[in-house]
Amino acid sequence: MSIRVTVWGENVHEQHNEVVAGIYPRGMHTCIADGLNTHDKITASTATLQDPEHGMTQERLDQTDVLIWWGHAAHGDVDDAIVERVCDAVWGGMGIIFLHSAHFAKPFKRLMGAPCNLTWREAGERERLWVTSRNHPIAAGLPDYFELENEEMYGEPFGVPEPLETVFISWFQGGEVFRSGLTYKRGAGNIFYFRPGHETYPTYHNATVQQVLANGVKWAFNPAARIVNPNDAPNTAVENALEPITERGPRLHKDGEEGYR
Amino acid sequence: MSIRVTVWGENVHEQHNEVVAGIYPRGMHTCIADGLNTHDKITASTATLQDPEHGMTQERLDQTDVLIWWGHAAHGDVDDAIVERVCDAVWGGMGIIFLHSAHFAKPFKRLMGAPCNLTWREAGERERLWVTSRNHPIAAGLPDYFELENEEMYGEPFGVPEPLETVFISWFQGGEVFRSGLTYKRGAGNIFYFRPGHETYPTYHNATVQQVLANGVKWAFNPAARIVNPNDAPNTAVENALEPITERGPRLHKDGEEGYR
Amino acid sequence: MSIRVTVWGENVHEQHNEVVAGIYPRGMHTCIADGLNTHDKITASTATLQDPEHGMTQERLDQTDVLIWWGHAAHGDVDDAIVERVCDAVWGGMGIIFLHSAHFAKPFKRLMGAPCNLTWREAGERERLWVTSRNHPIAAGLPDYFELENEEMYGEPFGVPEPLETVFISWFQGGEVFRSGLTYKRGAGNIFYFRPGHETYPTYHNATVQQVLANGVKWAFNPAARIVNPNDAPNTAVENALEPITERGPRLHKDGEEGYR
Amino acid sequence: MSIRVTVWGENVHEQHNEVVAGIYPRGMHTCIADGLNTHDKITASTATLQDPEHGMTQERLDQTDVLIWWGHAAHGDVDDAIVERVCDAVWGGMGIIFLHSAHFAKPFKRLMGAPCNLTWREAGERERLWVTSRNHPIAAGLPDYFELENEEMYGEPFGVPEPLETVFISWFQGGEVFRSGLTYKRGAGNIFYFRPGHETYPTYHNATVQQVLANGVKWAFNPAARIVNPNDAPNTAVENALEPITERGPRLHKDGEEGYR
Repeated sequence: MSIRVTVWGENVHEQHNEVVAGIYPRGMHTCIADGLNTHDKITASTATLQDPEHGMTQERLDQTDVLIWWGHAAHGDVDDAIVERVCDAVWGGMGIIFLHSAHFAKPFKRLMGAPCNLTWREAGERERLWVTSRNHPIAAGLPDYFELENEEMYGEPFGVPEPLETVFISWFQGGEVFRSGLTYKRGAGNIFYFRPGHETYPTYHNATVQQVLANGVKWAFNPAARIVNPNDAPNTAVENALEPITERGPRLHKDGEEGYR
Repeated sequence: MSIRVTVWGENVHEQHNEVVAGIYPRGMHTCIADGLNTHDKITASTATLQDPEHGMTQERLDQTDVLIWWGHAAHGDVDDAIVERVCDAVWGGMGIIFLHSAHFAKPFKRLMGAPCNLTWREAGERERLWVTSRNHPIAAGLPDYFELENEEMYGEPFGVPEPLETVFISWFQGGEVFRSGLTYKRGAGNIFYFRPGHETYPTYHNATVQQVLANGVKWAFNPAARIVNPNDAPNTAVENALEPITERGPRLHKDGEEGYR
Repeated sequence: MSIRVTVWGENVHEQHNEVVAGIYPRGMHTCIADGLNTHDKITASTATLQDPEHGMTQERLDQTDVLIWWGHAAHGDVDDAIVERVCDAVWGGMGIIFLHSAHFAKPFKRLMGAPCNLTWREAGERERLWVTSRNHPIAAGLPDYFELENEEMYGEPFGVPEPLETVFISWFQGGEVFRSGLTYKRGAGNIFYFRPGHETYPTYHNATVQQVLANGVKWAFNPAARIVNPNDAPNTAVENALEPITERGPRLHKDGEEGYR
Repeated sequence: MSIRVTVWGENVHEQHNEVVAGIYPRGMHTCIADGLNTHDKITASTATLQDPEHGMTQERLDQTDVLIWWGHAAHGDVDDAIVERVCDAVWGGMGIIFLHSAHFAKPFKRLMGAPCNLTWREAGERERLWVTSRNHPIAAGLPDYFELENEEMYGEPFGVPEPLETVFISWFQGGEVFRSGLTYKRGAGNIFYFRPGHETYPTYHNATVQQVLANGVKWAFNPAARIVNPNDAPNTAVENALEPITERGPRLHKDGEEGYR
């Protein structure tokens, strides 16, 4: 059985910026999906902001095991209702990987509950990513560090919650550091943030980056059946209590009534 | 110097339900604030949903070190813009304590990025809270357990992210358990969720509960000056890099330009 | 490929206590291994305290993907050198599952760095385990709770470090709660503590308990090649620095010298 | 009331190495204590390896709120019984701060349960420490980064458990990164690891480093009374159960009997 990946691309720079179009003629999302499709047991397809419902219909989400999200210039154009739909899928068990400038994507901010801010500089400087958790599944097959000769700098403090685990930390030529690989869990969904991938550099053509993405997909994949109503808060009737109890005192609600939200 | 606490109460049941009005004639928020004001170095006041801007003006938040939030029937009436204002204050360093049914309050859900759901039963059953982290500041002065003879049941699974620390776990007479004291950090703000406090029982008159709230206030208080712009993502110009670097490759942004959001 | 599991049993009560021998005539370890061997892709064998080197030779550890440890009466008889050998294997990537009274086993205490103490009562009371992390791999296929009609009670506070994730919390008939399923990571090794399994009750014959153990094995398994020297602290010579630097100031060590330990 | 700090120094290099003696003529421990004593509400004294019982008598530990530990050349000379005594104090609530090469100190390795290894280079290169958790109490009064012009390099992967919080990450001139400020909790004791402080450089004369140490002391201090027997695992008799239960099935232990260890 293959892990079904959907790579969501904003697909704006590729249409309007010659440099980006030159590096990613078929779009960044297609490059990422092509890389994943070279790996066994991963089947990747794409969706973009411009698709109906941004390509994020309920049907599509139901058939997506792991969603990868790249956005930058058009975060604000993503419909709030679709953001909630994506988050529901995550809470129900869909894995999700946020790339680079998606630190400010609506679904990432929604899932983190934090500012997700950082410092940045666009100078094509050297980035060196260090593995901080040896033999972590996301670092499988990687040496203790790898380099990207030209990348945008992201610097600490990175305004995210303390992660489940820190997998990578970046060193930047200009003097900054950044927690570049972080894992989280929200509901039944595994979340991985991975820093590299500025659109004016060929980062997603890099074989080690592609390996990290494939590793991330395998790590984020939860084979359990999706939780159908991940927001349910069911009432348990007194007569169905697991230990026999007798109702005491006053009540607000009638048996079987819905709780307030 | 005193820690300035604002107790935010929804103040709906107290107006419409005789039982609740009987237990909390001046409102649950006032009872909670009165309890806190018996403690040294805490000065508590109140605000309610019905106040202009729900009492949560920028000025009020600026003068609040720790906010306590109780809501239930009217979560949906809280204005989204005010939710964001509260979250900004938390990210900037304001402490916040969410009580009982505030597990579904908008600011809690916003800060958790998770469903925050649970199971529940209103039977006035016995709850016994066990301390899971001995000598945690929030458990200061407490024995290893304490009991509330009549409470609403909340049961696992509780749909929240893995906490920084689990401080209390509840045993319920009807057979359930619940993580009743959980700590989080979002931005510079400390967050404490505390389960007890169903409105039809006199929970906030209980001395041990009042002690936990006072402990929670002291734990959540961050004496550092509030971060003014907790969402800032400043650009660092190439010529100001801490280590000398030379710009290489193409750019999207001009020097000093704002990043995308 | 199959996950190679070694079930380590202290094998003392089975030899000296008629009740235990009656429930587990071939030893608790054999019962646990038999249960695991009914699952696809798991091959379990056993080792006991009485074996040469407690059955924990380097060769055996090298061929063990996940080690399961049950001990109680003879924690002190486990040789310290073998404890270190087991911990080295964990740090190098071997998974390990500690059962029940192994909360006081030497390798568990060594890996936790904490007292690992608790309260207890031997009354054959009802235990109900609640899943706190829905769709966690260790809870795969499980309902939201399951019951063991007769078990020893373990109560909070449980003196362990805050876990990576809490997977189960137990409710006890006599009024206590306990964090019964906890995950940790030490070095490259995944660690799972699972509470049930008092030797005078038939717990390891229970199908749901067997399912949890099989799930735990799959979760703890790290397919990466074992780290050969998990304690190495290599010196990086100045001339091999990744960025060109010039040595400045005084030194304690010569090039290539070992650091202090 | 003042926080009582004991600064433990190995005091070996200061006696045998002219460079170290020149920078710290009265010992590194004395320099650290002097710095702390300039802060309000902190009273620091010193102890060394050469003192009877390494200066770590039970009486001394009982009167120590926060212990600071610097060691390097003589880790192996610290008596194992005293290591356990120190750990017992931590589990009972004593705060502890480990500095620099104390990553390989026996009490640190004992409390972490992990290899605590790293890579290193002694080249007097530039280290820049970035704050990763703005307004964390340990970073109080600090800018987003500070620099040490000459330090030893420590590089990732750092073989420690995932921390409670990451407070500082270091950038090194030669191309490495390191998690330089990490917090943990073991039992009731708060633990802070802080990286800088190689003995051949004047790091502990640096005002910002001294500020971090004072902040760390205030953060690590637990005002609760020390837990007297942090390893106790008390039996709860059936007749004292909080909920009435009847004993069922066979038992191993008699009432009031000690459990196995």
